[in-house]
Amino acid sequence: MQKENAPQACDVLIEAGYVVPVVPHAVVLEAHAVVIRDDAIVDILPIAEAHQQYTAAKTVRRPNAALIPGFVNAHTHNPMSLMRGVADDLPLKVWLQQHIWPIEGAVIGPDFVEAGCTHAVAEMLRCGTTTCNENYFFPDIQAKTYEALGFRVRVGLPVIDFPTAWAKDDDEYFARAEEVHHALNGKPLITTSMAPHAPYTVDDDNFARVRDMSEKLGIPVHLHLHETAQEVEQSIADYGVRPIERLRRLGLINRGLMAVHMTQLTNEEIHLCSEHGVSVVHCPESNLKLASGFCPACALMKAGVNVAIGTDGVASNNDLDMIGETRTAAILAKAVADDASALSAPEALRAATLGGAKAMHLDHAIGSIEIGKQADLACIDLSSVETQPLYHVISQIVYAATRNDVSDVWIAGKQKLEQRILVDMDEQAVLANARTWQKKIAAVGAAR
Amino acid sequence: MQKENAPQACDVLIEAGYVVPVVPHAVVLEAHAVVIRDDAIVDILPIAEAHQQYTAAKTVRRPNAALIPGFVNAHTHNPMSLMRGVADDLPLKVWLQQHIWPIEGAVIGPDFVEAGCTHAVAEMLRCGTTTCNENYFFPDIQAKTYEALGFRVRVGLPVIDFPTAWAKDDDEYFARAEEVHHALNGKPLITTSMAPHAPYTVDDDNFARVRDMSEKLGIPVHLHLHETAQEVEQSIADYGVRPIERLRRLGLINRGLMAVHMTQLTNEEIHLCSEHGVSVVHCPESNLKLASGFCPACALMKAGVNVAIGTDGVASNNDLDMIGETRTAAILAKAVADDASALSAPEALRAATLGGAKAMHLDHAIGSIEIGKQADLACIDLSSVETQPLYHVISQIVYAATRNDVSDVWIAGKQKLEQRILVDMDEQAVLANARTWQKKIAAVGAAR
Repeated sequence: MQKENAPQACDVLIEAGYVVPVVPHAVVLEAHAVVIRDDAIVDILPIAEAHQQYTAAKTVRRPNAALIPGFVNAHTHNPMSLMRGVADDLPLKVWLQQHIWPIEGAVIGPDFVEAGCTHAVAEMLRCGTTTCNENYFFPDIQAKTYEALGFRVRVGLPVIDFPTAWAKDDDEYFARAEEVHHALNGKPLITTSMAPHAPYTVDDDNFARVRDMSEKLGIPVHLHLHETAQEVEQSIADYGVRPIERLRRLGLINRGLMAVHMTQLTNEEIHLCSEHGVSVVHCPESNLKLASGFCPACALMKAGVNVAIGTDGVASNNDLDMIGETRTAAILAKAVADDASALSAPEALRAATLGGAKAMHLDHAIGSIEIGKQADLACIDLSSVETQPLYHVISQIVYAATRNDVSDVWIAGKQKLEQRILVDMDEQAVLANARTWQKKIAAVGAAR
Repeated sequence: MQKENAPQACDVLIEAGYVVPVVPHAVVLEAHAVVIRDDAIVDILPIAEAHQQYTAAKTVRRPNAALIPGFVNAHTHNPMSLMRGVADDLPLKVWLQQHIWPIEGAVIGPDFVEAGCTHAVAEMLRCGTTTCNENYFFPDIQAKTYEALGFRVRVGLPVIDFPTAWAKDDDEYFARAEEVHHALNGKPLITTSMAPHAPYTVDDDNFARVRDMSEKLGIPVHLHLHETAQEVEQSIADYGVRPIERLRRLGLINRGLMAVHMTQLTNEEIHLCSEHGVSVVHCPESNLKLASGFCPACALMKAGVNVAIGTDGVASNNDLDMIGETRTAAILAKAVADDASALSAPEALRAATLGGAKAMHLDHAIGSIEIGKQADLACIDLSSVETQPLYHVISQIVYAATRNDVSDVWIAGKQKLEQRILVDMDEQAVLANARTWQKKIAAVGAAR
């Protein structure tokens, strides 16, 4: 029975024209309030009742906006943010070998990683993203940067068969992975994953060590998988089997796997992913722009596979815009499935929030607006020329809104964006930093 | 020889950090000025020289922006703007028959057309579009609305085999077409086209009359063509040939044809289009969202076919955002062509400007920043977190900017958007009108 007593204290009471909780699915609650205490959601109820039941330290009124769970960007390489558009319209091999790797070779290091992640946090907040799934070198520096900025992240602990600025050999990769994991233990916004780069850059021994360490540390595995047809062909040539089958034999096809890209899938592989609880991270714009192929997002969902959405890195993609990525996922899925009802707007929004949270093993805490979950929220204004008239809130978010319609963002109950202003970041300093790094990166000579 | 005499008077001098003239191709002129007198571009030169040579009534300084030719949206149904998102995620037939047609049946008329076009002009200006290619009923009302708002348009003169609110029979369609065409003669911003709806709604007799009237009036033909596989199959069943072959026999495959969609093309059909100067209007987001298929944009361009870009109507698509549409065209083409270098950013920008102008037979006047052409211009700010750092201006416009980065727009020398404010439209009135129509349309009961 609900208490009818004196109002309870809370920290923030957000009144929204529309609350889209994602759970239950496809529901829009009109004129509802979300009540926050400390870092968590303590209630969701009609605005009038909210004011009877709660006394808020701060009330935020957004009558023209939809409040949604913050977007979960399930695949990023944010340290590369300052390489945005450095080399476009190139075949993957030329892009990597003649542009990205030479630049990385010249500039990579802790300061590059910190600068890139900082720029990315500003961009992610401005598009309503509250969590990202990182995959790059120097996870220690990434974690330190995200923690300082109050941004939720799962940092990947990289493993790759050749020496890099991060580690000189296999043993060092695993030693540093374990060391970073333990150093981050207990930080509320920061978790880790094992991040073996890809089937073509990680041998069987290293995959076995990844499997063992992920089990030992109790963390998921974040892996580029079946990104291109060439990767699959190469695997057949080198190992006699497709990468998924190779990973199955190595014991990596399981609930812990976040399989990124997956543009090349047989029906048997879709079934295998479903059966073993693999999550697929769909990066539609990256797959299109790099001509990697088409992930069968709708077929995966129909088979019961959890599908998340990621932007990939801005060096390839060229933004971290989760609204744009979600729209691309929704419209592309229809053409790929030859069915205009495939991957509906509510399904796309769910993939971009709860789907990401599930893939990242964070759905106990984030991904939907539910009592007890973390207050990771984004407010999307729907009162502009481009988002009027308004018949269907979720359609409007997915098919008509842009990142610029995001007005406010909270992470763990703290407001990070307020009426499009970054609350605790200096936007001018972020932009000045971008100009400084632009000069350094352009000076490498590999910028196209 | 250039005059070194006293400065000449001009109306507007726009100083831009970057001028992207589109002609010549892929060029970026840093720190250049574009000089406007009356409705035309009279010079393009470095800023310092501009101030020596011209005295401007108004100088506009945009050091962080790129000045481009205004976007040409080569396929719209703008009277439907107030049906944005009224029914999404549905198969084409259900969408049309159970939602769009019942709503149109209840609300269509001059006031609906005027309201929709007005809303659309506000939206188009806010995304840098300066010309559109209309395709809907009541072209007279459309023309009147666009003329009053100072927006450049080619209105389609509709022909369809069944009675509508616009005309009761074949003879009335053609009579009204000719009447509207002559009434609009001599208006500087307004031109017309013949707009037979589609091969499955126009019979041979009417296509022959369309051909004859387009020749007589000297105007192009705007036609939905090879939009879906089903259309092609139906044509084979009904006429024994694919729609393009049927149109070829009827004498309509020629330089006057703006063929919209074209997702189903054989190599022979691509060759035919190239040989006969057909322009293809590519609407990638509509084709994806309605699961129509994939237009081979890169193969068409390689064959020498002029490719334009259109958003289609907001009832299906759900916006008029030419920056987003151009990005989708560029990235989708790569996956469709299996080549990451396909449809580069400069090629995509050219399609979205000069390609549209050529398709619409307006490239003598618009589509590029060249001396003597109309001053139809858009300014795109590139100084935000999402568009920094900046290595390649054209890449940044296509792959990183959004419609909200458009700061200023001119049509025929008149400023229509200034620092994101509509100069001569009342934005609040546009929004109030949207709310009024939302109520009327929702009351029909067919909104999903």
